Amino acid sequence: METMVKALIFDVFGTLVDWRSSIARESRLVLEPLGYKLDWDAFADAWRGRYQPTMEEVRSGRIPFSKLDTLHRINLDYILPRHDVKPLPEETLRHLNNAWHRLDAWPEVPEALRRLRKKFLLAPCSNGNIALMADLARRNDIWWDAILGSDVARDYKPKPIVYLASCDAFNLTPGEVMMVAAHSSDLAAAAEQGLKTGFIGRPNEHGPGKGETKPATKVDYAGSDLADLATQLSC
Amino acid sequence: METMVKALIFDVFGTLVDWRSSIARESRLVLEPLGYKLDWDAFADAWRGRYQPTMEEVRSGRIPFSKLDTLHRINLDYILPRHDVKPLPEETLRHLNNAWHRLDAWPEVPEALRRLRKKFLLAPCSNGNIALMADLARRNDIWWDAILGSDVARDYKPKPIVYLASCDAFNLTPGEVMMVAAHSSDLAAAAEQGLKTGFIGRPNEHGPGKGETKPATKVDYAGSDLADLATQLSC
Repeated sequence: METMVKALIFDVFGTLVDWRSSIARESRLVLEPLGYKLDWDAFADAWRGRYQPTMEEVRSGRIPFSKLDTLHRINLDYILPRHDVKPLPEETLRHLNNAWHRLDAWPEVPEALRRLRKKFLLAPCSNGNIALMADLARRNDIWWDAILGSDVARDYKPKPIVYLASCDAFNLTPGEVMMVAAHSSDLAAAAEQGLKTGFIGRPNEHGPGKGETKPATKVDYAGSDLADLATQLSC
Repeated sequence: METMVKALIFDVFGTLVDWRSSIARESRLVLEPLGYKLDWDAFADAWRGRYQPTMEEVRSGRIPFSKLDTLHRINLDYILPRHDVKPLPEETLRHLNNAWHRLDAWPEVPEALRRLRKKFLLAPCSNGNIALMADLARRNDIWWDAILGSDVARDYKPKPIVYLASCDAFNLTPGEVMMVAAHSSDLAAAAEQGLKTGFIGRPNEHGPGKGETKPATKVDYAGSDLADLATQLSC
């Protein structure tokens, strides 16, 4: 099967980057000097907690497609007063919203992607927008062949068009593309469209011991992390 | 002004890659073993000659957006019988059409892009589709931050949306983005939308001595080639 797969496409938040501790750190860097002492992990969870409901407004067609930076900002404006943060200058809000552009990769990711790149085309298939993905790639030294996902499909996962548009962008059939994610639901949706699937464990995504370690759906490969998956794919 | 520009976006066919001699070579590699002896440069010119008219079908709205690989194939099917080439197997036609994925960069381009990358976000803003751009980048060792252009805008240059969608994909205003091209018409269209412009000379694009050497429109920078432009931009 490996010889048939020509491209790997990746979920990013949680799978390749540690959004939770990065957002906690970046939020603290912005808000603590202004006198706020929050539970920064809880703040990160609250911000991320608005992610699915806000995307669902787009997926359902209730609002037109808007890039994820815009949705993150809607969610930030929602949670700040609920954490007793007083109105902030626009420049501060923009910098804080761009915390999502300053996420760190899980430690093994950059080197594992370098190994995988020798054999496969690589692209994110994330709900993150192009500018966000480009900044994360620069920060973490990731060489993508293209940035695919929500901005190209103009919709959000797990809608089928996002997986299918990513395959089509590479001129590949779904069977020639493997979706890699640490989330069983993402892989189940990709498999439904005919893509191959590679699960990797992220046991600490939502905090110590709070993350998927084993796939809860049928997958083609399952690795403990991305380096392990690369080894299984003979990279 | 340089400090304001945060991203460079590039025309590709003619500006970064030598489409004419590459298409002549690749067409010969496919057709000569089948017994055809054509004027390969003229064949390349004929194929490229159908480029603007076919894209105009999309720009005008007469046909829905189709990726450039599809338009190249329409044009190939049009010119082959006009060069007395008999019907070819589908696999051969696909390989021949993919000649556009096997174009060589002008010699100074890969190193000049490495220099520019240290200071700017870089992306193609080409009418070529994502798969085509990704293959050219692999072939010529080009590290893009994203692949922008027709597939993201779902229309073809010089329509304004293609330039504007490229700026928006990087979360930048047009004034923070410089369009780089060897074609004055491309730069004039970009400038019309507020982008900065960088011209580079390609005196041999259409054959020896047949190419633009000086901009025929007002530009912010004009270089003899991409290395010269990189030097002017202090890279």
